Amino acid sequence: MATQRILDFLATRRPEGPCLVVDLEVVRDNYQAFRKALPNSRIFYAVKANPAPEILRLLASLGSCFDTASVAEIEMALDAGATADRISYGNTIKKERDIARAYDLGVRLFAVDCVEEVEKIARAAPGSQVFCRVLTDGAGAEWPLSRKFGCVPEMAVDVLRRAHHLGLDAYGVSFHVGSQQTDLSAWDRALADARSVFVKLAAEGINLRMVNMGGGFPTRYLTDVPTAQAYGEAIFDALSKHFGNHMPETIIEPGRGMVGNAGVIKSEVVLISRKSENDEARWVYLDIGKFGGLAETMDEAIRYPLVTPRDGDEVGPCIIAGPTCDSADVLYEKNMYPLPVSLTIGDEVLIEGTGAYTTTYASVAFNGFEPLKAYVI
Amino acid sequence: MATQRILDFLATRRPEGPCLVVDLEVVRDNYQAFRKALPNSRIFYAVKANPAPEILRLLASLGSCFDTASVAEIEMALDAGATADRISYGNTIKKERDIARAYDLGVRLFAVDCVEEVEKIARAAPGSQVFCRVLTDGAGAEWPLSRKFGCVPEMAVDVLRRAHHLGLDAYGVSFHVGSQQTDLSAWDRALADARSVFVKLAAEGINLRMVNMGGGFPTRYLTDVPTAQAYGEAIFDALSKHFGNHMPETIIEPGRGMVGNAGVIKSEVVLISRKSENDEARWVYLDIGKFGGLAETMDEAIRYPLVTPRDGDEVGPCIIAGPTCDSADVLYEKNMYPLPVSLTIGDEVLIEGTGAYTTTYASVAFNGFEPLKAYVI
Repeated sequence: MATQRILDFLATRRPEGPCLVVDLEVVRDNYQAFRKALPNSRIFYAVKANPAPEILRLLASLGSCFDTASVAEIEMALDAGATADRISYGNTIKKERDIARAYDLGVRLFAVDCVEEVEKIARAAPGSQVFCRVLTDGAGAEWPLSRKFGCVPEMAVDVLRRAHHLGLDAYGVSFHVGSQQTDLSAWDRALADARSVFVKLAAEGINLRMVNMGGGFPTRYLTDVPTAQAYGEAIFDALSKHFGNHMPETIIEPGRGMVGNAGVIKSEVVLISRKSENDEARWVYLDIGKFGGLAETMDEAIRYPLVTPRDGDEVGPCIIAGPTCDSADVLYEKNMYPLPVSLTIGDEVLIEGTGAYTTTYASVAFNGFEPLKAYVI
Repeated sequence: MATQRILDFLATRRPEGPCLVVDLEVVRDNYQAFRKALPNSRIFYAVKANPAPEILRLLASLGSCFDTASVAEIEMALDAGATADRISYGNTIKKERDIARAYDLGVRLFAVDCVEEVEKIARAAPGSQVFCRVLTDGAGAEWPLSRKFGCVPEMAVDVLRRAHHLGLDAYGVSFHVGSQQTDLSAWDRALADARSVFVKLAAEGINLRMVNMGGGFPTRYLTDVPTAQAYGEAIFDALSKHFGNHMPETIIEPGRGMVGNAGVIKSEVVLISRKSENDEARWVYLDIGKFGGLAETMDEAIRYPLVTPRDGDEVGPCIIAGPTCDSADVLYEKNMYPLPVSLTIGDEVLIEGTGAYTTTYASVAFNGFEPLKAYVI
């Protein structure tokens, strides 16, 4: 997945230390693929996946909207050329003063999942559109969501009714099927729940108009994933099934699916060793780990493809760890990686599919190591 | 554990957003307690626990040595006034060019746990002192160590023999009993292993002289922990038992034990909600979470004491989560916290015992949130 442009950049520039290189042409292709797969949905790029200004500017120029998690992300989207009407404040957890700041910046679209949040928005962003997030079970996702966001569908009815009565625009329902979701039927189950909220509120004269289908679109790591086209078809079928010819407006919020496969991290083998003479497995220590940007290896959830200069040689099992003095900074131990037995200290290792959720996860200065550098080309 | 000085600082300065406040007087007391409990051990403060310049300057002025994880940490210790002979490069995973930089800065004491690392040091830091880390089982520790660092004692003999033959000073053995270790007998088991390495090498005419007993000294979170004095006695007894009147030089590397209880994080309740009408548990969302500095809540390993302005009121079970759009950003869910039912959005919550392993763990800008601010008073 390292494009020729990325390989050329690394070969020419030889950046020192670990770094992420993102190829904007891949981001452009991904955007067009979503556009084509779901032509009737508005695309809100999840800024948190990778807020590099070059990525935001490209997507703004292509017509993308932006899903933001904080006032800082709203400002980044505005700086990149998006107008406020293309920005959603999609975090269900907001300080009231941050809602007021977003409102001052022109944002009029907010996520909620409880009455308490609706009340803040009614005070700090009067008249705005709100959508209520509904809990889904997340089955089939590699990085399943906890119950942190959303409420049960029955409660969403109360939340949106309350919004309506406080003078807000009860705009719709959102859900998130879980990140890196490869089970296409997950959208079908969630859309059935969304539909139930529409029906109950319509009976009270409150007419929702929008379904925000969130993110969860996967990027390819070690195994193949369905194409954007396959997702588009499954989602269109489910929408038709549940909403018939009263099709709502729809929104999608791809993050990982937009930038994950556009980035590659270049790292270096710092040490290869064994713990005792008769250990079969080697420990391979890289110059990047869990605290340097690879936080999503938590519980070995995401298995990134690794490319070494010795690929093709005989392989043996390896535990992969980061460079810090923290014993939790182990990337893969339960499920070891087969790596070439010829792998040597100083070799360059490419970690593919790392365009999303890496740079901003990196810690400020843990163990004195710099945050992950990034180049967007 | 929030000292009056910290409470006064917060009341007077009213800093905006989450922040850590560290009381240097507590750090000073902790240093003196270690000094008194282990008068014959040299203290190497684990810089990674909290590298704030004020803390490093205080400890340098008190005579502390410094255990560092990277060249950047070596430079911080030097800037704080430590001389190079008081600095250990204690990370067993080092790039050869970083070893050379440390050597250029005057550092002559290095950790190793394999022959490959010894060979790097022999090339890049000729003649230096090396100590070999031995694996311990970590039983009894709240934040147990994986097998990431160290090798079995039999292999340590080979590693130190190799160091000797390459012209390095085979100085001693190190171990780490696991962070937040409350089982005093853990040091006894580890010292028995250390002694076995001494004996085997002495038979070959290689005389080790130092035992680095690492860190693991706990700070008080929700339950009481043994005092520094109790640790000192247990360690002295174990040393006497295993080394008799051939007592080696000893080093300790407190990090959490030096600064953990000196710091308090001030946070704010952003939202309190339920997921359905009949949920007993409330979700309490703070403005700091796993990616803002509380990474050690991973797997709910460390349970920080929480102080609210409503303490004393009736309590009910709460799940505690951070402010980001990441569903993994939940602090305590399996083991819920009892918090006052009167707790309200906007209330200030103090998170105690957070002086160690918080600021530098914070991510650069995840979800657009700033890294944790810190004030050292």
